[in-house]
Amino acid sequence: MAGNSIGKLFNVTTFGESHGSALGCIIDGVPPGLELTEADLQHDLDRRKPGTSRYTTQRREADQVKILSGVFEGKTTGTSIGLLIENTDQRSQDYSRIKDIFRPSHADYTYQQKYGVRDYRGGGRASARETAMRVAAGAIAKKYLFEKAGLTIRGYLAQMGDIQCELKDWQQVEQNPFFCADEQKLPYLDELLRELKKSGDSIGAKVTIVVENVPVGLGEPVFDRLDADLAHALMSINAVKGVEIGDGFNVIDKRGSQNRDEITTNGFQSNHAGGILGGISSGQTIQASIALKATPSIEIAGQSIDVRGNDVTVSTHGRHDPCVGIRAVPIAEAMVAITLMDHYLRHRAQCNDVEIRQYFK
Amino acid sequence: MAGNSIGKLFNVTTFGESHGSALGCIIDGVPPGLELTEADLQHDLDRRKPGTSRYTTQRREADQVKILSGVFEGKTTGTSIGLLIENTDQRSQDYSRIKDIFRPSHADYTYQQKYGVRDYRGGGRASARETAMRVAAGAIAKKYLFEKAGLTIRGYLAQMGDIQCELKDWQQVEQNPFFCADEQKLPYLDELLRELKKSGDSIGAKVTIVVENVPVGLGEPVFDRLDADLAHALMSINAVKGVEIGDGFNVIDKRGSQNRDEITTNGFQSNHAGGILGGISSGQTIQASIALKATPSIEIAGQSIDVRGNDVTVSTHGRHDPCVGIRAVPIAEAMVAITLMDHYLRHRAQCNDVEIRQYFK
Amino acid sequence: MAGNSIGKLFNVTTFGESHGSALGCIIDGVPPGLELTEADLQHDLDRRKPGTSRYTTQRREADQVKILSGVFEGKTTGTSIGLLIENTDQRSQDYSRIKDIFRPSHADYTYQQKYGVRDYRGGGRASARETAMRVAAGAIAKKYLFEKAGLTIRGYLAQMGDIQCELKDWQQVEQNPFFCADEQKLPYLDELLRELKKSGDSIGAKVTIVVENVPVGLGEPVFDRLDADLAHALMSINAVKGVEIGDGFNVIDKRGSQNRDEITTNGFQSNHAGGILGGISSGQTIQASIALKATPSIEIAGQSIDVRGNDVTVSTHGRHDPCVGIRAVPIAEAMVAITLMDHYLRHRAQCNDVEIRQYFK
Amino acid sequence: MAGNSIGKLFNVTTFGESHGSALGCIIDGVPPGLELTEADLQHDLDRRKPGTSRYTTQRREADQVKILSGVFEGKTTGTSIGLLIENTDQRSQDYSRIKDIFRPSHADYTYQQKYGVRDYRGGGRASARETAMRVAAGAIAKKYLFEKAGLTIRGYLAQMGDIQCELKDWQQVEQNPFFCADEQKLPYLDELLRELKKSGDSIGAKVTIVVENVPVGLGEPVFDRLDADLAHALMSINAVKGVEIGDGFNVIDKRGSQNRDEITTNGFQSNHAGGILGGISSGQTIQASIALKATPSIEIAGQSIDVRGNDVTVSTHGRHDPCVGIRAVPIAEAMVAITLMDHYLRHRAQCNDVEIRQYFK
Repeated sequence: MAGNSIGKLFNVTTFGESHGSALGCIIDGVPPGLELTEADLQHDLDRRKPGTSRYTTQRREADQVKILSGVFEGKTTGTSIGLLIENTDQRSQDYSRIKDIFRPSHADYTYQQKYGVRDYRGGGRASARETAMRVAAGAIAKKYLFEKAGLTIRGYLAQMGDIQCELKDWQQVEQNPFFCADEQKLPYLDELLRELKKSGDSIGAKVTIVVENVPVGLGEPVFDRLDADLAHALMSINAVKGVEIGDGFNVIDKRGSQNRDEITTNGFQSNHAGGILGGISSGQTIQASIALKATPSIEIAGQSIDVRGNDVTVSTHGRHDPCVGIRAVPIAEAMVAITLMDHYLRHRAQCNDVEIRQYFK
Repeated sequence: MAGNSIGKLFNVTTFGESHGSALGCIIDGVPPGLELTEADLQHDLDRRKPGTSRYTTQRREADQVKILSGVFEGKTTGTSIGLLIENTDQRSQDYSRIKDIFRPSHADYTYQQKYGVRDYRGGGRASARETAMRVAAGAIAKKYLFEKAGLTIRGYLAQMGDIQCELKDWQQVEQNPFFCADEQKLPYLDELLRELKKSGDSIGAKVTIVVENVPVGLGEPVFDRLDADLAHALMSINAVKGVEIGDGFNVIDKRGSQNRDEITTNGFQSNHAGGILGGISSGQTIQASIALKATPSIEIAGQSIDVRGNDVTVSTHGRHDPCVGIRAVPIAEAMVAITLMDHYLRHRAQCNDVEIRQYFK
Repeated sequence: MAGNSIGKLFNVTTFGESHGSALGCIIDGVPPGLELTEADLQHDLDRRKPGTSRYTTQRREADQVKILSGVFEGKTTGTSIGLLIENTDQRSQDYSRIKDIFRPSHADYTYQQKYGVRDYRGGGRASARETAMRVAAGAIAKKYLFEKAGLTIRGYLAQMGDIQCELKDWQQVEQNPFFCADEQKLPYLDELLRELKKSGDSIGAKVTIVVENVPVGLGEPVFDRLDADLAHALMSINAVKGVEIGDGFNVIDKRGSQNRDEITTNGFQSNHAGGILGGISSGQTIQASIALKATPSIEIAGQSIDVRGNDVTVSTHGRHDPCVGIRAVPIAEAMVAITLMDHYLRHRAQCNDVEIRQYFK
Repeated sequence: MAGNSIGKLFNVTTFGESHGSALGCIIDGVPPGLELTEADLQHDLDRRKPGTSRYTTQRREADQVKILSGVFEGKTTGTSIGLLIENTDQRSQDYSRIKDIFRPSHADYTYQQKYGVRDYRGGGRASARETAMRVAAGAIAKKYLFEKAGLTIRGYLAQMGDIQCELKDWQQVEQNPFFCADEQKLPYLDELLRELKKSGDSIGAKVTIVVENVPVGLGEPVFDRLDADLAHALMSINAVKGVEIGDGFNVIDKRGSQNRDEITTNGFQSNHAGGILGGISSGQTIQASIALKATPSIEIAGQSIDVRGNDVTVSTHGRHDPCVGIRAVPIAEAMVAITLMDHYLRHRAQCNDVEIRQYFK
């Protein structure tokens, strides 16, 4: 029931199947007076868009977003904002042959069992195409948070297969098709993807999101902690299997004396915690990472069953990303933006009168 | 605002500070007719309780839970269930000397900045003591899910420091103070904790939760996916810095051909996904792991500041767990139980009429 | 914040301004497997549609609804349903002269003060046009409840001005433009409206909704009582100033001995309560009434101020209903349907296993 | 499911049965820094308390509330506030004879059918005793709204039976046991209640709530309108069958020219709307009225059935209010306060930056 919404005060509700007539969403709770045009949303949509390089699916969608309400004379009015993207490249015939098959590691089997019916075309609602509206909604949150409080929310590809890509240069991220911040790793990434294409296989990835200029105080203990809500938002992205805040799984073999972030009058001396203490932002940079599995849509044949209970062999030819993690960068940014925006408003509701004190020099 | 609730249909709302007069919670949405006594809740509370071994804090709390409503003649009535645990060991004086200090890596600083005021005694609301009510609520969910659908929800200590503990024997878990399922690792764990005690330090840990006999179909795409809600619930536990479903971060360097779970008429051939596909339970065993940081409450002196903005040195003596991850096992079980219970009811609301088909031999 | 949604399990979120490019909504939580076409929604939309008789506004809207998602091969899939109605008759120029004026008893002043900005065209979001999507969403609820449990949800005009119209014949309701169930009152209604048109005035009305074949057990004490949620849903309709369940305000001067509904083995002996006891449906017919004020959009000049703080005189010429209560009938039916549908699902979630007993002969 | 909560940002969740061991609630979302003591809550609890005059039930409850969390050194901390009232006068034996009977017009039948089980003692959860916690929660809202924005929320008995009581003097309201603002009507009320006591009957009532100094801008279109949320909150009180905002049902036979509230630079010229336009507070005084039915717990014998399906005769002797409407005054005030508080916070979240303009002289 009712799982297509996220956020309590900045509330995003989406609809749309991969091969339906349109995708859409309603964003409720946007403060009035924000300057907003379709171009503001289109930028991130274009970053997410398939078909932009040879490394992503060749499905081509214009992904042209329309603002249908909630904006008047260039400014948000405080009423709900309706967004729409019409699907132009629907080619349903491509999918007729998988109509009766439960593709392994896809949601075909679980949707069928849960609902007793499923839109098999391109994965229907379970398609990554659904994330386009997240990106559009996230762009509004990003814009508001930046204009209002200077927050910047940026992501990069931290790892693909065993190629680790460090955060060396934010400029670089927008200049290559991998969202890679380390120019020296580009040839290796390119080589890996070529090899995967040849072998008809795919690969996992790690994406890291970095938020700077975060105000102290965002997050609601005890269940709606900022880190808990980030984990929810990020784990809701297709193919994500793990979420880390700050040092994440590296804390397991660390001692308290190694892992704590000491404080002096000059500020925090380290940031193992990733900018969140007790579920509340500390004012330090927030860092969150996600692990994305390799897409199971590969050419290498695998075993599965059909809806009549027969064993079948499946191999996927056609338009698929060899590494879905690449395009997850703008999606993850959007989910972080939506979460922060929600907490920004939630904090304002309860603690509007509290004065932030400056403890550091 | 209003962050002290979790769950949409199985709704748990908690209150209580570490050194206040009592902890409590209200559980709304429990189906009527479930046999329930205080003893049903006490079992898990006792597993979580501090002071039970030399490896945990020596603070002693009876943690005796009372059911105040919602149960009549031994059965739940469908009305909201009020639970209460009175605090008996309040020793507020222990904490007077940290009254004006922001302990490093604690929530002192963020609570102070968010609310402009804080209950400094024992961490107040940010204390792990708050999790007692989670365990009580989780026990109700566990009982219902087991009686109704045979689900078993169990956890174990998967790693402490660099000591990995495999799941060898569930029986073993309840027979040692570490929730360790690998008897051979007990001496190593013991040795590590002794050494930590001597050095006045602490250590991180990994806890894994395993859910068996899960019905297919639980989880609500696209935002309230079962894995997303598990991530939220688990990340809301104090000290947790990472959450994994199934293979988690190990998927990054795996290929689609390695990582997919093939299907035959005999069933799934592997379970890299950890029992969830497209956000919906597949009927396979659910596996989730969390990383818990070492507590920063250690004897080794560290730098911090006080509320007047002076540099100070902090070291914590007294009643603290050297590895908070140990006692996180029943807490994590409870959070998984609460999440599954919520989704069990949610699924029933929408898809009650859908017949589950048996595709496997 | 986020006030554009209604319903917890059957969740309806709407967007759209009177003179924007489109109205839309997302309906989340619809059970899978329901046969659904656009024609199913169009019937009630046509009943609500303006321009269908000389008694309603002459604004002409096709109000043609499109289903954009959530339905596949004629059946609901369990995913969110996106609906869209494009605005065809936008004539924004009509409204330019009220751009700077706060029309008395309209929402112009309050929107301006709340948001600091407003879409003045035709009332923007505050226009009754917004209710079109409610009617479309309600049609889905109606269809499901009827097919699943035989519920019928019907309304009629109970009073206009001082003309009381009794429920004499349901057939009659669909045969006149007033939704009047008492054929003999038609000439009086006609005469009143002609007189109002001549004098450039408008009139209030009372609408009554009747729900038959209601299952016992719907409603969630203590706050989400069925009557409380109906009151919320009905009071959210434009121009509604009062809501009654059963005998409503007539209970004030009645005694317990007059007002109670006695029970025998033949069933309830009366229905003063209107089908709800303790917030839970009793299985009797549900009856709810609403009072709608006369629209302030009249030709008779009235005093107001403009956005620059000057006194002005306002009179409304053009396309307005002399009695907005008439078209409220399908809207009120829809709001009752949405509320009952939500409670139908909520009840199923918690009390699915409870067997209804037959106490009556 | 989960119907025991009200409010999105100022969230109140209650538990407790009439004859259970205690009543309690959790209030989440209270801003930090509010001075709060148990005495602040006790005042309204005492106004609601039974046994204070010969006109109300002689059940005597101390109704002594304890604050268990969320307040530290006399101020709210921003964390959830737990409240508890222990039941002292439980006399369960009084109710054993109604154990197997469905009292007419009570919730016995509907609870039994909904849940398959019920706590029959004193009505269990359906008892008006449940409202004690509402009053306690409302007292916090009242205090905050008054201190922060000067809002005063007051109610009075507007009618009992056919005795209408005008609002003549607020002082008078607290000086008689009827909450009557018209001193001259006191003898008539007294006489009516004596007569009812003699005849073993009960009577309905009307209560009106008046809110002064309301800021403009509270309320969230389109579903969570302020009037819709007030209707929800007020209709959720036991025995309420109708809710009116402003002129309420009197608008039905009024014309637009009579009913509109004209505006001049001196302000609004009337207040037929009751202080709310388009679901948003206009800054005028808010007025809301409710109709309460006579309690069916009367001595005059009535027909009913028992749980075995036999016809029986029921008459209620003992401790019952002849007019439950009287004690509804503080309860209704509390529900209005809770609703306004929620909207106060909601408005602040979204529209914090909007400047209210002064249009009137």
